[in-house]
Amino acid sequence: MIRFNCDYGEGAHPRILERLQETNFVQTPGYGEDEYCREAADIIRGLCGQDDLDVHFLMGGTQANLTVLSAALRPWQGVVSTDAGHIAVHETGSIEACGHKVLCIPHENGKLRAGAVAELCRAHYADASFEHMVQPGAVYVSSPSELGTIYSRAELAALREVCDEYGLLLFLDGARLGYGLASPENDLTLPFLAETADVFYIGGTKQGALFGEAVVIRNEALKRDFRYQIKQRGGMLAKGRLLGIQFAELLRDGLYFELSRRAVALAMKIKAALTEAGCEFYIDSPTNQQFPIFPDEQLARLGEKYAFSYQCRVDEARSAVRICTSWATREEDVDELICDIRRG
Amino acid sequence: MIRFNCDYGEGAHPRILERLQETNFVQTPGYGEDEYCREAADIIRGLCGQDDLDVHFLMGGTQANLTVLSAALRPWQGVVSTDAGHIAVHETGSIEACGHKVLCIPHENGKLRAGAVAELCRAHYADASFEHMVQPGAVYVSSPSELGTIYSRAELAALREVCDEYGLLLFLDGARLGYGLASPENDLTLPFLAETADVFYIGGTKQGALFGEAVVIRNEALKRDFRYQIKQRGGMLAKGRLLGIQFAELLRDGLYFELSRRAVALAMKIKAALTEAGCEFYIDSPTNQQFPIFPDEQLARLGEKYAFSYQCRVDEARSAVRICTSWATREEDVDELICDIRRG
Amino acid sequence: MIRFNCDYGEGAHPRILERLQETNFVQTPGYGEDEYCREAADIIRGLCGQDDLDVHFLMGGTQANLTVLSAALRPWQGVVSTDAGHIAVHETGSIEACGHKVLCIPHENGKLRAGAVAELCRAHYADASFEHMVQPGAVYVSSPSELGTIYSRAELAALREVCDEYGLLLFLDGARLGYGLASPENDLTLPFLAETADVFYIGGTKQGALFGEAVVIRNEALKRDFRYQIKQRGGMLAKGRLLGIQFAELLRDGLYFELSRRAVALAMKIKAALTEAGCEFYIDSPTNQQFPIFPDEQLARLGEKYAFSYQCRVDEARSAVRICTSWATREEDVDELICDIRRG
Amino acid sequence: MIRFNCDYGEGAHPRILERLQETNFVQTPGYGEDEYCREAADIIRGLCGQDDLDVHFLMGGTQANLTVLSAALRPWQGVVSTDAGHIAVHETGSIEACGHKVLCIPHENGKLRAGAVAELCRAHYADASFEHMVQPGAVYVSSPSELGTIYSRAELAALREVCDEYGLLLFLDGARLGYGLASPENDLTLPFLAETADVFYIGGTKQGALFGEAVVIRNEALKRDFRYQIKQRGGMLAKGRLLGIQFAELLRDGLYFELSRRAVALAMKIKAALTEAGCEFYIDSPTNQQFPIFPDEQLARLGEKYAFSYQCRVDEARSAVRICTSWATREEDVDELICDIRRG
Repeated sequence: MIRFNCDYGEGAHPRILERLQETNFVQTPGYGEDEYCREAADIIRGLCGQDDLDVHFLMGGTQANLTVLSAALRPWQGVVSTDAGHIAVHETGSIEACGHKVLCIPHENGKLRAGAVAELCRAHYADASFEHMVQPGAVYVSSPSELGTIYSRAELAALREVCDEYGLLLFLDGARLGYGLASPENDLTLPFLAETADVFYIGGTKQGALFGEAVVIRNEALKRDFRYQIKQRGGMLAKGRLLGIQFAELLRDGLYFELSRRAVALAMKIKAALTEAGCEFYIDSPTNQQFPIFPDEQLARLGEKYAFSYQCRVDEARSAVRICTSWATREEDVDELICDIRRG
Repeated sequence: MIRFNCDYGEGAHPRILERLQETNFVQTPGYGEDEYCREAADIIRGLCGQDDLDVHFLMGGTQANLTVLSAALRPWQGVVSTDAGHIAVHETGSIEACGHKVLCIPHENGKLRAGAVAELCRAHYADASFEHMVQPGAVYVSSPSELGTIYSRAELAALREVCDEYGLLLFLDGARLGYGLASPENDLTLPFLAETADVFYIGGTKQGALFGEAVVIRNEALKRDFRYQIKQRGGMLAKGRLLGIQFAELLRDGLYFELSRRAVALAMKIKAALTEAGCEFYIDSPTNQQFPIFPDEQLARLGEKYAFSYQCRVDEARSAVRICTSWATREEDVDELICDIRRG
Repeated sequence: MIRFNCDYGEGAHPRILERLQETNFVQTPGYGEDEYCREAADIIRGLCGQDDLDVHFLMGGTQANLTVLSAALRPWQGVVSTDAGHIAVHETGSIEACGHKVLCIPHENGKLRAGAVAELCRAHYADASFEHMVQPGAVYVSSPSELGTIYSRAELAALREVCDEYGLLLFLDGARLGYGLASPENDLTLPFLAETADVFYIGGTKQGALFGEAVVIRNEALKRDFRYQIKQRGGMLAKGRLLGIQFAELLRDGLYFELSRRAVALAMKIKAALTEAGCEFYIDSPTNQQFPIFPDEQLARLGEKYAFSYQCRVDEARSAVRICTSWATREEDVDELICDIRRG
Repeated sequence: MIRFNCDYGEGAHPRILERLQETNFVQTPGYGEDEYCREAADIIRGLCGQDDLDVHFLMGGTQANLTVLSAALRPWQGVVSTDAGHIAVHETGSIEACGHKVLCIPHENGKLRAGAVAELCRAHYADASFEHMVQPGAVYVSSPSELGTIYSRAELAALREVCDEYGLLLFLDGARLGYGLASPENDLTLPFLAETADVFYIGGTKQGALFGEAVVIRNEALKRDFRYQIKQRGGMLAKGRLLGIQFAELLRDGLYFELSRRAVALAMKIKAALTEAGCEFYIDSPTNQQFPIFPDEQLARLGEKYAFSYQCRVDEARSAVRICTSWATREEDVDELICDIRRG
């Protein structure tokens, strides 16, 4: 079985494991107060072009999302998300478990349109009973989105404007940020994100690390006491060094971006081959997640050899699946897949 | 200004105030452990035809909803509701503040269809990632609904069946229960509700009391320790007697049902007059809430004399409003309104 | 049975009921946005000598406490209280249910000493692992305390100073505030409280109203969006007018203070008689709650005729009880009690 | 600087890193549904001598504690712990953030006495206002405790009995379980724990793994839907295999127990040397944490070369510190420390 179902099916890039081994017997303080975390944070501040960003390393995406949002929102506030947003659908109500409603807006190509957020806010404050309804307090977007699409500078700038108008915090989930930055359609940069979002994260788990997300905070109010919130929510790793070591290794000399580019190139190769073979797509994605639509018969045949992740039924005879490449994808597996797809 | 905007614009039925006065200097224990609460609970058990129901008196609807649901749900469970459900829209995220997602299904005539609940549950357990999603744990319905419509026996029985199949608790919000039971289209009875729902409440606030909702629990697991939950959520009234006195007075000899019938009769009078005058309705309601659609000009004219509650814009020239009658509505005000409507 | 066990055993002062009757058919908007609430809030601002206080009317003490504290605290903060504090002991963990720890300090005469709060804060920030511990975020005091004792101006000013030093919000639970202000030992005033506390409340439930607590907010950050929080926690009474009417009646011409003085005078009469009879006290209280220690035999005899509230066993042969007077206590009952106590 | 301040100052036992490397490119499903987790769970069931235990792998202790307790408790319940319990003091109110009070009892030698738990429960149900107080719902103990002491079979059996009497769930935090089992004073076994506790965990983080705690559940009600709760609280590691690989490696052939024995032997060597040198101890610990009391001057001298963790001031001239050994402690460092201590 060759797995294309997700981008976290293997361990970590070999350089990560090597670095863990090299540093294994160095004694450090716990809880992220070690040299490796400091180094990684400094590298990230450098890449973002800002000296006064706070950087915290968390273990996974759900943990990052709930820690950030529970610190960001007042009790009566909710977070605006698309109805496809990971926090809205696939985190078992973790945001609600922290007391906050996810205010859903139908996605457009997996994305949240600034105009729709503005309209939601306008309608809230225009309602005579607004105090009887959850107040919008933050905006959650993922780029790449859950459907592989990415935000442009213009789209994020427009969201920023709406957030400023209505006093919302802008939070970008970057669990697959590298794959977005490596997309041929991308015009985002880390400095732009660091200027535009109040808080965002640079995903490690799906990008070559064993695990880890680097949360970058610009918003002063959110910076304050954030480590209390990490600890309270169970996210303060005793051996915090493990996160620092991994992010330093990934980001020190561009490994992160190189791995991302390679994975996206392989995804584009699959996309081109599928397109050529006349395959339709559930959505047009420029990143490492591709969503082809297969006839059920073909899917059954492919399913004997490859693992995809099932997306949804499209019509009576066809289903969409998700194919992921990653830092670990082998080019020969991609070629074999293409070959098998061409066979029909 | 004559107010038809809600059914809680006045104080209480005069018999309630008289009874409060008569009992004022009787000394009782606090927190609902008095003779009046016992009497009222016994009357309710009698009306429901079941001896082993637990009855608790709470102060308002939001409080009743959040107290019941926080006791009913496990942390990873959510409650299924229509997207028009009061808990989904107009309680400032009180259910989320207790940690639980409201799983919304589009309403049909203000109501939740059993088939849609079954489909939501089926889809949940069919999903490979079901543990990554909120588990449906209870169903919330209001009858009359937020749009004035009522459930039939058949509809509630069908919901009961789905609840049994998927292990859901069935909770009926009866903030306006009397107005539903008094509807010409009603086929529900208190004994049927007490057999069919795990828990429901008999609304007092909108039905002639100063305030109060009588929560009736049949489900054994939910009965257990419920008073702890009332206290924790701030709902245990020190002078609990006030609730017992009011419900005993309303229910002892049928006052509750008499007041409900009168209010619904007045609503039907308005509905008939509106229909005759060619008025369209946003929804066809058989209870004390009516939702006529008025041309904006007419609405402006009526608005100088009457308070309605704004429902929504229907098209460029027309809006829907809500007109409520209640136990306190004066027949001469209804006649004047009808007269003014006829004038156009 | 003559009840001295609590100060909420009867209904309400007759003037309250009369006023409810007079206003019963006046139509008002709901949710506290009526003329009566505005009037009562204005009276309170006048009594406090400040124009820019926000006043909200809630139904009970637990509700007031949890609504204020959940709005006041950040998720990782707790509230400092004595170990006898009502929120620490007798509200079924309502503060924890909102996510916050109650940081307990042993009481001294029922009160929280400023020095002890300062020491707790100093120790918190001095600890190398302070982010692993709950951050003190607010101080909760009750005056009169759960043991009947009252804070002096100097004591509250000292607490204010500590709060300013460590960034804590100062919250005073005034469920029995009137009985405190009426104490012969009192040097507090409403203007002093309004200047010194960030938020406090003027209790109605135990002071002649059917129910109700008037929450007075000076802190600007806490003022913001407070009504959302009231609604979310189930505390927004549909017929909010009931609260406005009651507080206006109690406070318009001094009824509140008059009733408090009378109750305290009766308590002092009991205290003097007990002292004269050689009775010891569990604590020396200058307000309407008295805590005499009785030999078990005498207590059994008295218990046939009077209801007290049991406080605790003092030694093998004696127990302490609580005797309350209230706005409703009859002087002849007090005299009879005194007479019976003298008999031994 | 030689660090004896904690048992999580290094990476992981070399065999762990080797095994991660060997398995690095094997493709597996995510979220703990892989072969390695299955293998590790089977090994644990084997060691516990029970086939029907549920085993879940979490990333850290705070996460394990909050996930277990939020699944175990009803909203109005609290967990009984010593006042030195990790959940009571050093997890930033994580249990309160899930809505539950920690009901503290003063520790005896770091431990919770069954009799004290029984007395707390008896007092709860004997109180006339018990519904106004948090209901005890679970018992939390750590063995080794935060002070290095361990529970005996008899002590745990006595706690089990109290738990059965009052319907409490018994939860044992085993973050340092191996060091306890390796103690010369130990009479516990894994099968005994699995029979006696409703749920416990086998710590990895402090016992040779990079991170990880293996939660073992015997209680049927708690087993149900536990993975939802793991996901909701942010504890479901995408690459769950990392936990399975580590625990399988540690437990497959006894490495875990061997490392524990070695660390405890080194701690006993330090303890013996300190005792011989006339040093007093804050507490008599038979495990890898030792709490010697040093004169401040000596401590300052030692502090130039060694890192300890500060425990508390004992008197004007002396302080207690914590010295930890671990799987990674070098014997030559221990010998050097002993040598320096002997010098005074």
